[in-house]
Amino acid sequence: MSKRGYIPLDCYPCLFEQVSSLAKITGIGGEKGKELFEHAMRRLLDTRGKGIVVQHVVRSATDKAIALSGRGDGYDPYGDIKRQSNDAAMRFAGAFDKKLRESPDPLQYGVKIAAAGNIIDFGAKKHGSLDVEKELRTLDDREFGRFDFAAFADRLRAASSLLYICDNAGEIVFDKLFIEAMQRYNPAVEITCAVREAPVINDVVFADAHAVGLDEVAAVISSGSIYPGTLLDETSDEFRRLYERADLIVSKGQGNLETLLDEADERLFFILRIKCDQMARLSGVEKGALVLMQGGERG
Amino acid sequence: MSKRGYIPLDCYPCLFEQVSSLAKITGIGGEKGKELFEHAMRRLLDTRGKGIVVQHVVRSATDKAIALSGRGDGYDPYGDIKRQSNDAAMRFAGAFDKKLRESPDPLQYGVKIAAAGNIIDFGAKKHGSLDVEKELRTLDDREFGRFDFAAFADRLRAASSLLYICDNAGEIVFDKLFIEAMQRYNPAVEITCAVREAPVINDVVFADAHAVGLDEVAAVISSGSIYPGTLLDETSDEFRRLYERADLIVSKGQGNLETLLDEADERLFFILRIKCDQMARLSGVEKGALVLMQGGERG
Repeated sequence: MSKRGYIPLDCYPCLFEQVSSLAKITGIGGEKGKELFEHAMRRLLDTRGKGIVVQHVVRSATDKAIALSGRGDGYDPYGDIKRQSNDAAMRFAGAFDKKLRESPDPLQYGVKIAAAGNIIDFGAKKHGSLDVEKELRTLDDREFGRFDFAAFADRLRAASSLLYICDNAGEIVFDKLFIEAMQRYNPAVEITCAVREAPVINDVVFADAHAVGLDEVAAVISSGSIYPGTLLDETSDEFRRLYERADLIVSKGQGNLETLLDEADERLFFILRIKCDQMARLSGVEKGALVLMQGGERG
Repeated sequence: MSKRGYIPLDCYPCLFEQVSSLAKITGIGGEKGKELFEHAMRRLLDTRGKGIVVQHVVRSATDKAIALSGRGDGYDPYGDIKRQSNDAAMRFAGAFDKKLRESPDPLQYGVKIAAAGNIIDFGAKKHGSLDVEKELRTLDDREFGRFDFAAFADRLRAASSLLYICDNAGEIVFDKLFIEAMQRYNPAVEITCAVREAPVINDVVFADAHAVGLDEVAAVISSGSIYPGTLLDETSDEFRRLYERADLIVSKGQGNLETLLDEADERLFFILRIKCDQMARLSGVEKGALVLMQGGERG
């Protein structure tokens, strides 16, 4: 458990939205649904939101929801949503691959695609009504609120090893295109992708990564993380070895930013869309903007 | 306290959104903000959401927020928002009054305006980004999911006394126009408007009603309710006397519907916009639709 763990006030209502989504997706209603909410409330009351992070509560609520659903430990609540997200993203992959290859600066366009993949959070409940095609059509107009591209390109040019920490299903289709662009930019770089150890929200596990063929372009390992983020103390030895040795680390999405930003490591580059006020404060970039941000300025 | 009190699962995340809004509006952050959330969580844990309704939790959280803000008992957290809502609505009042008077069926158009007032919930946090002018421009295209107009007009024609239970600031500007239309339809009807006894969310109290001159067209009394709704057992004797004797009762908005629907009283007509799934289930009308619904079919 992170010593610096803390759940900010702004995350409280959002956590309950997450729990509500879990209840709906697992089909838990009535008394059992209340039990699920009460479980999350007790975690917040018992800890006062200290010594833990939101990722701990989401994991804990997910386990509780799986137990209450009576569908066995192998049940992945967001399994169907993740498959739909991957399928939807795959339908757009060809067009974006073409645009990327024809771009005057394919690496830069690759970063944009990777960040856009995080915009189009196919699985996120709040984005249920998202017009995916419109988001993709207007991708070229999107602006970065922070774009540490020169530092990123410099490091990539010199890198022998790159650790790519994945986030959501759907999004990984775009990660795959970005990874191929990075490989063309530096054919010598060895890229390893890390996915979650266990299903949580719409974060990718092995099966989701394999479904889009991510393993065809890079090695795919589990980070050992059972959380929707990367709490280094709670990752696998293999992951931490790769993490320590990597010349460059790409961290996708909000959960990974939340859990890795305090590492204050210049090898880290965070790619995401800023989705809430709390993240806007953490990143210093306004809500809604795309971000390519080098770590290391804090801590 | 209502014997039939029950907080449905769907209301849990929404309640925490409400608490979050309270914290922001009263400027309570950090540890005090957590105290506010913990207060609401404890009420839900202690009761398991039974024997109370959401209105009890909102009241209780509001009192806690006022106490934590240190601004004294007279502090109305939504005071500024309510003033802005009234002012905004007043800017449109003239145009709608003209449309109403020129309408081929002014009473029907009056119902529409009253329901629209509930759409344009100027104070509701989630509607912060609402384009008021656009909502008003498209008012004529709005459809009712249920429109018990014939029954309503029949009862109004024969009514000597009408009790009008108000909801939000801003909305009451439109209520006032509707009340004038009803008075022209039946000049003999005596109309009394009821507002809340104490500030809660953006529901109107005396001061808000007076600010838009509601007292110029009808008697205005307090219902004695300190809740964002009307729990009959917890209203004043004066209100209950008026309620019992009224030939016709108009109930505006969701909070009043939630708390009065179980009265199963044919004198009750609910006018509102259906704003959530829970209300859609209760009313049998889909989310987003306008409603003029006679009570009395349940219970």
